[in-house]
Amino acid sequence: MTQSLTIALAQQNFLVGDIAGNAELIVKMAREAQSKGAELIVFSELALTGYPPEDLLLRPSLQTRIEAALNGIKAASAEIAIAVGYPWREQGRLYNCAGFFADGEMLGQYAKQHLPNYQVFDEERYFAAGDQACVIDWRGTRIALTVCEDIWHEGPVAQSAELGAELVLNLNASPFHMGKQPERMGLLSNHAQNHNLSLLYVNQVGGQDELVFDGASFAVAANGEAVLQMPAYEEALGLVTFADGTLTAATDSVVAHNDELASLYQALVLGVRDYVNKNRFKGVILGLSGGIDSALTLAIAADALGAERVKAVMMPFAYTSDMSKEDAAEQAKRMGVNYQSISIEAMYREFMAGLATEFDGLPVDTTEENLQSRCRGVLLMAISNKTGYMVLTTGNKSEMAVGYATLYGDMAGGYGALKDVYKTKVFALAEYRNTIEAVIPQRVIDRPPSAELAPDQVDEDSLPAYPVLDAILERYIERDMSAEAIISAGFLRDDVMRVLRLVDVNEYKRRQAPIGVRVTQRGFGRDRRYPVTNGWKAGV
Amino acid sequence: MTQSLTIALAQQNFLVGDIAGNAELIVKMAREAQSKGAELIVFSELALTGYPPEDLLLRPSLQTRIEAALNGIKAASAEIAIAVGYPWREQGRLYNCAGFFADGEMLGQYAKQHLPNYQVFDEERYFAAGDQACVIDWRGTRIALTVCEDIWHEGPVAQSAELGAELVLNLNASPFHMGKQPERMGLLSNHAQNHNLSLLYVNQVGGQDELVFDGASFAVAANGEAVLQMPAYEEALGLVTFADGTLTAATDSVVAHNDELASLYQALVLGVRDYVNKNRFKGVILGLSGGIDSALTLAIAADALGAERVKAVMMPFAYTSDMSKEDAAEQAKRMGVNYQSISIEAMYREFMAGLATEFDGLPVDTTEENLQSRCRGVLLMAISNKTGYMVLTTGNKSEMAVGYATLYGDMAGGYGALKDVYKTKVFALAEYRNTIEAVIPQRVIDRPPSAELAPDQVDEDSLPAYPVLDAILERYIERDMSAEAIISAGFLRDDVMRVLRLVDVNEYKRRQAPIGVRVTQRGFGRDRRYPVTNGWKAGV
Repeated sequence: MTQSLTIALAQQNFLVGDIAGNAELIVKMAREAQSKGAELIVFSELALTGYPPEDLLLRPSLQTRIEAALNGIKAASAEIAIAVGYPWREQGRLYNCAGFFADGEMLGQYAKQHLPNYQVFDEERYFAAGDQACVIDWRGTRIALTVCEDIWHEGPVAQSAELGAELVLNLNASPFHMGKQPERMGLLSNHAQNHNLSLLYVNQVGGQDELVFDGASFAVAANGEAVLQMPAYEEALGLVTFADGTLTAATDSVVAHNDELASLYQALVLGVRDYVNKNRFKGVILGLSGGIDSALTLAIAADALGAERVKAVMMPFAYTSDMSKEDAAEQAKRMGVNYQSISIEAMYREFMAGLATEFDGLPVDTTEENLQSRCRGVLLMAISNKTGYMVLTTGNKSEMAVGYATLYGDMAGGYGALKDVYKTKVFALAEYRNTIEAVIPQRVIDRPPSAELAPDQVDEDSLPAYPVLDAILERYIERDMSAEAIISAGFLRDDVMRVLRLVDVNEYKRRQAPIGVRVTQRGFGRDRRYPVTNGWKAGV
Repeated sequence: MTQSLTIALAQQNFLVGDIAGNAELIVKMAREAQSKGAELIVFSELALTGYPPEDLLLRPSLQTRIEAALNGIKAASAEIAIAVGYPWREQGRLYNCAGFFADGEMLGQYAKQHLPNYQVFDEERYFAAGDQACVIDWRGTRIALTVCEDIWHEGPVAQSAELGAELVLNLNASPFHMGKQPERMGLLSNHAQNHNLSLLYVNQVGGQDELVFDGASFAVAANGEAVLQMPAYEEALGLVTFADGTLTAATDSVVAHNDELASLYQALVLGVRDYVNKNRFKGVILGLSGGIDSALTLAIAADALGAERVKAVMMPFAYTSDMSKEDAAEQAKRMGVNYQSISIEAMYREFMAGLATEFDGLPVDTTEENLQSRCRGVLLMAISNKTGYMVLTTGNKSEMAVGYATLYGDMAGGYGALKDVYKTKVFALAEYRNTIEAVIPQRVIDRPPSAELAPDQVDEDSLPAYPVLDAILERYIERDMSAEAIISAGFLRDDVMRVLRLVDVNEYKRRQAPIGVRVTQRGFGRDRRYPVTNGWKAGV
């Protein structure tokens, strides 16, 4: 007799730490899936806590809260089976578990075997590793549980296959970075073909501090083909049917990541939206300079929150060009955001007056540039404090890398949309956004970048051209190449040594930078843990 | 025949990342030890890289640099045997090793078996664990190598004993926290008595970002008694003689940690000194408010760097009392530091004028208080940028915990001396410092703490009394007690719920706070990794 099982893949946006709230969402989605004909619903890794819960996992009352939440899930499983991820303590050790609940009971519990402890991941700080597969025979189908990283290794799927699994559930919390989706797809396709089994890849969606989870859950049949692809960057419920060893989709597939720039842009939008909303800010405020970084940030903010929740402030000084003032006003008008202009001339003048004795006889240097930037930071923070709008910073990864930013000035704020986006990519994203609707005045994209902190200043006076700078940075930061290796790859020694030195000596600034969306394989956050006090010199 | 071996314990202050420089220091100290009659010198864990090297360990050229450094050490070992710690890559895995070099050769290499991956430690991010002891028979003595954490477990010493070790070298990078030295001593004494062997505990000394290593190396004889205690908080070379199974000191012992406050004070001084000097700042500047936090910070700074490298700035506003102005000037005079006063009235007025439209009709709130604080931050940073003096922040752990501090205001700066010191301890340290010499005017210690950001404001208007606040904080932060557990311990429900909520919602501020000296078992740094976006609510 042919067994047929309808399964829902639940791609949800959980709030880290809100165990009771997440449990409610799980039960609600289970009911919804049941109403659509599903007999089993699969959630993502650590769905009960959200991912990553970080040191909340060390709180002794975690287990009490998880037990309470699982009681609710067990009860709900009388109506529909539920596979869900949560932390579980047993004999003094904490495990990253996936549980299978049906008919009001727990039928199986799997402990994750491969704990990532690299890049942004610290799972060995919290968890002990499991050492065996978990295959459940339910309504005539042999279903295996696995968790995230397990699928990047041979063991857990092979173990499951040995125990006769026909269908492998893989519960994920897999953050987005550019180019990741084809990797995931290839991995699961290989597992399917190697072991002649079907796999469901369920990922959470949403922003959590520096991480963005793209969702993009999918299902792979035993022949290695993806039969269902769910959307990226939004909550979704997908349905598949597993009958007689064959997996078929029962809902429509979409193209999850249609092109790199579109996907990247959506990741930035989601990161900003979730940070602002989950932290309950009324909206965001940002300094609009007439330059491309703030222009793109404004577009992202308005797309994330709606124009009515975004305030833009132009804060001109003696070096601000008319072009900048015109373009800032023009963009704000095109996007329909609140716009005002507040000059920093008077504050700057009073600071310099107060400092006259201290600065007497000393030459003008970057101090005066930083002071302009800090007057702007103070203004934005004052409006933020008074209104409950969070300051969004506008700095990009190239600037964060070489320290081309002012602490407590343009670095003042709660979140950075472009923190992990190189300047060359900022240009590409601005062009991309304008293909949908020309919200950024073309002149902002075409003019040479300038911080406008000194007369006739342009960035390339003090830095290599951005295509060169970004190429050097990417090799040093993301590929860990040494100075000599980068020089051998065809870059000028002077450029390389200067850029690497700037990266090294500016760690102190990055340490105090706001969180920002991570979109590469090495962002400036949990990902890259460099000492500030550091005697390493660029070389071999 | 009686074998006799003279061994030096080298307690050095290494610079993280400066492999060539650290190797030079090792060779220099080896020569010095030899000139004092030593035949073997023992250095600390990862002495070649300094500890903790963090993600420098991921750089591919690490191995090349280590090999070059070890060549120099091998050569030097022709004259005196050297035991030293370094990272070593083998078959694609990195190990935290201790090597024993003598007669120009490596005679043995041990890989650390217990890798700490908790609190501030991330060793599983970098290292694979070793699985066997390493006992070297050298000049008739059986010497075992162990590394740091190994000694906190039974295995490695027991394995070494089984292989016949008489003398165990334990290479450490053990950061200070209050009350740690008796724990270390007890552990080693137990090992000695359980296995009838002698142990040498060699620790590095010095500050590295948030960590302070206290040194305080010591030697324990087979009867469990400490025969040598070396000083804390300074470089030192100790000598012991091992003859016929008996360990005796060949240099004088000191009292390493004579009392808790003295030890804590010295830890703070060393943390500040090393951060400033290793990062090559000319000196430090700080805002002297007339309050106790800045008073104690000034004392620490002057003790760390000398009065001539310290600048104090009083930045009065309408709410600054005459008492504050008088006491600040008086303390600066007593300590002989550069002192000036710059009013923030004019800058504050201009900011409010610029914000008049935005603020029209809105009530006065903490925005205006933050603005005062930020005017001060901008002034200090301007002087810092112009002079190369780093801004030292003055906030304490109680304030950092509840967010009683202004981002980009009093939180602006490079390093915080009191970041991990509760307010009640700040008072105790101020009293302690004054017992040596009355540098802090007594009135600063006696007056009720006030931020002086509003008329007649005192801290206890908006916070519980500090002894209560600190007791709640210590239970929540350092002991992970839940709200209900703290209430059960005898605190008012309202106080507890309010304080815990403040701790939770102010994570975003701490994330952008400067680094500061860690002196407890849970500082606000690498030690406590909480999400900013966090739905966890205080309760059970």
